[in-house]
Amino acid sequence: MSETAVSEPEGGAALRRVAVLGAGSWGTAFAKVLADAGTEVRLWARRTHVAEEIERHRVNTEYLPRTPLPGGLRATDEAAEALHGADAVVLAVPSQTLRENLTGWQTLLPEGATLVSLAKGVELSTLKRMSQVIAEVADVSAARVAVVSGPNLAKEIADEQPTATVIACPDHERAVALQRACSTGYFRPYTNTDIVGVEVAGACKNVIALACGVASGLGYGSNTMSTLITRGIAETTRLGTALGAEPMTFAGLAGMGDLVATCVSPLSRNRTFGERLGQGDSVAEAQRAAHGQVAEGVKSCRSLCELAVANGVEMPIAEVVHRVCHEGLDPVPAAAELLGRDRKPE
Amino acid sequence: MSETAVSEPEGGAALRRVAVLGAGSWGTAFAKVLADAGTEVRLWARRTHVAEEIERHRVNTEYLPRTPLPGGLRATDEAAEALHGADAVVLAVPSQTLRENLTGWQTLLPEGATLVSLAKGVELSTLKRMSQVIAEVADVSAARVAVVSGPNLAKEIADEQPTATVIACPDHERAVALQRACSTGYFRPYTNTDIVGVEVAGACKNVIALACGVASGLGYGSNTMSTLITRGIAETTRLGTALGAEPMTFAGLAGMGDLVATCVSPLSRNRTFGERLGQGDSVAEAQRAAHGQVAEGVKSCRSLCELAVANGVEMPIAEVVHRVCHEGLDPVPAAAELLGRDRKPE
Repeated sequence: MSETAVSEPEGGAALRRVAVLGAGSWGTAFAKVLADAGTEVRLWARRTHVAEEIERHRVNTEYLPRTPLPGGLRATDEAAEALHGADAVVLAVPSQTLRENLTGWQTLLPEGATLVSLAKGVELSTLKRMSQVIAEVADVSAARVAVVSGPNLAKEIADEQPTATVIACPDHERAVALQRACSTGYFRPYTNTDIVGVEVAGACKNVIALACGVASGLGYGSNTMSTLITRGIAETTRLGTALGAEPMTFAGLAGMGDLVATCVSPLSRNRTFGERLGQGDSVAEAQRAAHGQVAEGVKSCRSLCELAVANGVEMPIAEVVHRVCHEGLDPVPAAAELLGRDRKPE
Repeated sequence: MSETAVSEPEGGAALRRVAVLGAGSWGTAFAKVLADAGTEVRLWARRTHVAEEIERHRVNTEYLPRTPLPGGLRATDEAAEALHGADAVVLAVPSQTLRENLTGWQTLLPEGATLVSLAKGVELSTLKRMSQVIAEVADVSAARVAVVSGPNLAKEIADEQPTATVIACPDHERAVALQRACSTGYFRPYTNTDIVGVEVAGACKNVIALACGVASGLGYGSNTMSTLITRGIAETTRLGTALGAEPMTFAGLAGMGDLVATCVSPLSRNRTFGERLGQGDSVAEAQRAAHGQVAEGVKSCRSLCELAVANGVEMPIAEVVHRVCHEGLDPVPAAAELLGRDRKPE
């Protein structure tokens, strides 16, 4: 029986081998963290040349050009090879393509493996959180799905700058096993069972970062940004608790921590996109400046506003961002409207 | 009887005249907010030439050189003149001299006036919060003392950049009256009865800003800063709740809001001081660079560590800041120690 326990790890057992699916900046950086923590890692890249470059030259020039990748990190463009024998599967693909990707991998997922989401957002068509999409497509119980989220700008983690994160899973033992597999001197994971809270926080933060960018583009400083962050986490908390989350999750690393990092960092695409709107660009102009990419917050403000209405929750910041991005509201009166609401208790 | 109610306003009645004692940057900016809100304001300046400059030229060149001050704001160097007939008295002097200043004004305080603290910190000798010092020296009940705190960098408020704040008072009606007296299009006050939480948050934030400065001086980016902010508010919350505060206060404008503004702003003295320490300066060298001034966090880390020990609370960030500032601990191992603690639930 002990052999079975070793070859088919259950909650709490060590994760010896982990597959990371998606070799963008966060997938690659998280694979490096796992390898640095002594875990065997196979990183799947969609494009062959990316996998080959990592295998031969230990670098992913497109996403993390200055980061030497550790020897324990192996790369492949074959999902089956990455997934074979994995005790945990880390999904590091964009939120709006996760369902399609995972459907393709469904038959390859190792039995019993913990499925880990690095993706942030709410599926536009279904308003489902990423862990819900994963459990549905993989046909597993919610207890097998975990989420990693925190103040985790990939480039800074690749530089081994000290940070912390949250590993959320309804099954605490699985969270602990993953925590062990990715703890390093520079990356400090905390566990949490409130996956709803962690995912709602991750989905809302891009919208608030976009609002902070707009304020910055209008010339406002730290008070305004900090007020938007604080009122933003308040409306995130309202939505989260309406969906069953624990309020204190939003005060933690996956809530406030991730939000602050995203809002203050010059590396944040949502903030930069918002800045252009604040400076007078249209959404189309800001999109052209971002090499054709629309910031995640532009999309997710729509699903968040729908979720807010469906749950009877007020989300004034998300609503104003939605009107600026999709209804042509001018940012100047938008800011005045946000800050000029009725006096009331906090 | 209605005349009495008008001439001696009680809780909830309008504040027609407010005295602001202290013409530094925050005292002057808050006096401007009150005047802009239509309240009659008398601002006391310790130095005659500052009062005269405000009266004659409507500017305080030393602290807010580019801010035209409104006509409704009158200045004087006579405390008795500022205090005469005031419905509220705003104390805008440094925390470590508040007791001495207020002792001198004690006989001049109008009967029934709300006493409002803008000072942040814990008195070094007694470990008392500012509102406790005020109630003690003025010999009034705690219900008569209010605190204003939030993401309120004075220079940005003087520029009329939109922000919010918290007015905390055990007597909700007094808080509401003060809220009415200082609501403007750019300054949005929320009320709260948790004065303990608001004051503990204000005292801790300078220490955490100093830690963020050290991290920045060591070359760390947004993840590390955001982690320190989030773990910092967690230890602030632990201390506050041990002292009787409401935990949710720390997630609000006077907690997270003020902390974020202070930690990210280039205007913050504590952050700048910490940066020099992180770059290798000694406390004495950083002090010389700051024109001889020691940052508030250098002083308050001592009283906060004493309060933490007395209340059986762990405050690892305040403790490390204390060891860096007062025991010569090198910032590099200090950062490693802070981020490398045991794995555990959040």
